[in-house]
Parts: sequence; structure tokens; C-alpha cells
Amino acid sequence: MKAPKAHWSTVVIVGVGMIGGSIGLALKARKLAGRVIGVGRSAASLAEAKRLHAIDDADTDLATAVATADLVVVATGVGSISGILNEVDAVARPGMLLTDAGSTKARIVATWEKGRRSRGPSKTEASGKTDASKRGRHARFVGAHPVAGSHRRGPAAADPNLFNGRVTIVTPATATPAADVEEISSFWSALGATVYTMTPRDHDRILAMTSHAPHVVAAAVAAATPAEARPFTAGGWRDTTRIAAGDPELWADILLDNAPAVARALSRIAGVTEKILDALEASDRRRLVSLLTRAKEDRDALGS
Amino acid sequence: MKAPKAHWSTVVIVGVGMIGGSIGLALKARKLAGRVIGVGRSAASLAEAKRLHAIDDADTDLATAVATADLVVVATGVGSISGILNEVDAVARPGMLLTDAGSTKARIVATWEKGRRSRGPSKTEASGKTDASKRGRHARFVGAHPVAGSHRRGPAAADPNLFNGRVTIVTPATATPAADVEEISSFWSALGATVYTMTPRDHDRILAMTSHAPHVVAAAVAAATPAEARPFTAGGWRDTTRIAAGDPELWADILLDNAPAVARALSRIAGVTEKILDALEASDRRRLVSLLTRAKEDRDALGS
Repeated sequence: MKAPKAHWSTVVIVGVGMIGGSIGLALKARKLAGRVIGVGRSAASLAEAKRLHAIDDADTDLATAVATADLVVVATGVGSISGILNEVDAVARPGMLLTDAGSTKARIVATWEKGRRSRGPSKTEASGKTDASKRGRHARFVGAHPVAGSHRRGPAAADPNLFNGRVTIVTPATATPAADVEEISSFWSALGATVYTMTPRDHDRILAMTSHAPHVVAAAVAAATPAEARPFTAGGWRDTTRIAAGDPELWADILLDNAPAVARALSRIAGVTEKILDALEASDRRRLVSLLTRAKEDRDALGS
Repeated sequence: MKAPKAHWSTVVIVGVGMIGGSIGLALKARKLAGRVIGVGRSAASLAEAKRLHAIDDADTDLATAVATADLVVVATGVGSISGILNEVDAVARPGMLLTDAGSTKARIVATWEKGRRSRGPSKTEASGKTDASKRGRHARFVGAHPVAGSHRRGPAAADPNLFNGRVTIVTPATATPAADVEEISSFWSALGATVYTMTPRDHDRILAMTSHAPHVVAAAVAAATPAEARPFTAGGWRDTTRIAAGDPELWADILLDNAPAVARALSRIAGVTEKILDALEASDRRRLVSLLTRAKEDRDALGS
């Protein structure tokens, strides 16, 4: 396998919050891009991202910025990603690389593919070749999810090492050419990430369990705790509920995007809770210890 | 109100783990005790506590150690506290102060009181005076719970500042003389804690919500996550499940001690989870955002 490309002349980042800002900082710290342009709706965020050197320039006009780009990353909330991917595609040079950093993948990838099919595949594509200029879409999109979130927001929370040693999941559609998957994977691994590839559906099923359902649980614990009890919380409560401080609008979109898988993950969690409650009700100490030991082993497998 | 006593000639700590070790370190750092004696079953823990200067001396014989004490703190797991309180009482000088650091209070306090009543109250006590030497019990016990736990264990995890600015809840029984409550409260506040007083029952109800039920939830999330999903966990999962790494034997005893209140707290949490699931199922974004906003506000009220 030839060494993957690890330099891009102009990278456009749409959405310069915590994730987008960290992409910019990592690109510049690792000298991976000639120029990094930030695009966004908030002039204040763009100014702050520039001040923090997460981007070289800010542009409020998507078309101008994208015209010169060889790679565009959409790092907004999942609720707006599909619309922005379409906007970018409409003004992209044929063959331009496009990825996103959304926390859900199935709907975003399916919506992109639907747009691709509605213009019909070209003969070239049908024959298995990858001459992107002949496709219905202009850009070559491969969805991705850097699994490196936090409850913090905005460019001020950006970190050039955010992706370092963390996982990014790249989620090609069935029809995505392997070469495109490789190019997008090399982008994310150049930022420091360990790249896994899986289907968008597998991604959403797994993330429902590792991220989306825990968010619901954290929110439920926080909201179920009456104000009178707050002075009597300690580290355990704080840890368990920390992600409930995440942005409600962003998280509502993530949960809505992945509702069936989130419901299934919550039902798995409720199943274990029921077992613990049964052992408690039966005063069955041995079974209770065994259930808690199983949980401890699962937790210990991940480190602190 | 006269300044509370803040010096004890000999303090005995039974159980020199994370909590007991921290009590020893705080007593010595704040010069609150002439001598700190550690008592425990594990010679290794006692040796380590002594090496770390959490105790001045170790004693494996409870009776010898207690004979010279003016204050004894039982800092073992809740499963063994009642038995140790009785053992201490049997060898205590009349009027000696006794407290514990257990995470549950109702059963421990009720068991102590039952022992007190079984010998019958003295005339002096019935008249409201507090001449402890005339009571059925030798020692003056007031239960307490320093709300400053962690998933870490052993004297190596001890910290002289563990109680600093944290809450300790002191839980007198109905018959406990106010003077005893004051003396035990001044002990815990001398260690740096902010002391609240409440009934053992209120304590257990509140801690079910702020500590015991979150522990069950954390364990359930950890155990519900299949091994294949583990590489795809990030900070949110790690935070939410951190306390599941706590000691299963200790936690089984805590949960069993407080089972009905834990079940009620879990049912409150399940109620909020249901509301979130309903909003998801109905694709009701506005209601979902409102529920997550409520949770975020509750979480934000506590800081990071």
C-alpha cells in the first residue's frame, strides 16, 4: 500500500467549534495544510478561531471558500450537516474530498447517497472506475466521526491533540470507492486518530451504546435529583452526570437521528438495572456482588 | 456557643483504607490529635498507613487500642460497622466518643440504639442529663458520613485534604444528647468538612439519589456495553461509568442496607428516562430539548 497523502493545499472547515477548531489546530500543528479556512454563521466564533490560530482565514461565504478547497470538513451539529453537505457539493470542484465529523452517521450517509442516486450514477461509476467528475455528485464524500467529544463547546475548548490516540470511525456507503475511503482515512489518521472503518448502521448501533444512551442516563440522573439533595453529591454523582452539561440542541439532534438504536441501548441498560434490583429485593448478596463485579471488570477494561 | 473542642489526645481509627487513612492524615496535618492509632485486620494496610504517616501506631488488638482512646472512628465498610461498634463499646471507657464513616446510616444507628435500649436507659438519662457513665452503652456514639468517596481504595489513596470543603452528614438518633452531636460535629468540621445534621432516614433517602442509585446506573451502563463496543467509548462513557470501578463487596453492602430508597431513586431516574424516550419516539424535538435543558441546568448547578 502506498503511503497515504498527508498534505492538503487548502482545507475548509465548516463550523469552528470545539471539534472544528481542534481540526484546524491539529492541521496547523502538524503542518498538514497549506491554508485552513474557517466557515461559519457566528462571526464571533470565526474571529476567536482565527485569534487562536485554529484557522488562517475566516469566510462567511461558503461558495468562495469551497471554490479553492481540495478538502472540506463539515464539523457542525448533526442537525445541519446534510444541508451543508449539499450546499458544499453544489459549489465544489469535481473530485473534491468531503467529510464530516457528525456523531451519527446512518441518516447523513443515506441522505448523501440519495442525492447521488437522484442524479443517477454515470456509466464510468457503474463500470467500477472512480472518475469523480462523471458522477452525479461533484464531491467525493466519506462520512466520519472522531470519537473525541466533550461536554465543552466553542473554539476556546479546541485542542490540537484532541484526536491524538483517539478513535475516528470512517463510515463509507456500499457504493463508496475504496480509494475515497483511503483518502479520507489518511486525513483523519494524519490528525493523530486511530481510524476504524465500519458501516454507518454499525456505527450508530455501537455509538448508541457507548455515547448516546449514556447521555440520556446522565441527563436522567441529573434531572431526577431534587435541588435539596444537591449539597450532598460527591465525585460519583458529578462523574455520572457530567455529560448532561452538553448542549441540549446538539444532543436532541443526535438522539433523534439515532432514536431506535438509542432505545435499544437504553433497554439493555434497564435490563442490567432490573437484575441488580432483583438481587437487592431478594437480599441476594452473592448475586449482587457478582453483577457488580461483572460491571467493574467491564469498566476496568477501559482504564480511568 | 463556646468554641467546639478541636483536640483529642488519642484517636483510634478502625479501618485504615482510603477514608480511615485520610482521617489520620488530616488529624496529623492539622495537629488535632496527640496520637493516632490504626486498628485493622490487614497487617499490610496498617503497615502502609504507618509508612504514609496516616497513623502513629498500628494495633491489631481492638481492646488495647480503645482502652486509651478519647475518640474512636470506625471507617470500615458498612457491612462490618455495627459489629465493630459493639466490640468497641464493650471495651470503651464510659463516655468515650464514637463515630463512624459509613455510607448508610439508618440500619447502623438503629442497631446501635437497639443495643442501647436492650440494657435500658438509666434514670439519669431519662431525666435529660448526659452522664454517659450511667447509660446502658459505654461510649457516646453519633453516626456520620463524610460525603467524599471515590472509586479508589486503600491507604495509598488517602488524602489529608479529602474532607476539605466537602460535606459530612452527622446523623443523631432521636435520643442522642445535643452535646454529643456537637462534639462529633466539631470532630468532623476540624477535619475540614462542612457538617450537616439530619436524621439517619433522611440521610439514606438523599444518598440513595446522590450516590447509591448513580452507582447502580454506572454499573448497568458498564455491564450493558458489549466488549466489541469498548474501543469506541470516549470521555462521556468513561465519566458515566467511573464509579462502577468501586469495590463490589463494599457497594453490595451499601445497596443492601438502603435497598428500598435505592429502588425509589432508580424509579425516579427511570421516570425521566421514559419521558426522554417518549419524546424521542414522538420525534418531539421541542420536548426533548426542554428535558435535556432541565437536566443541563440541574447539572450546571453543581459545577464541573
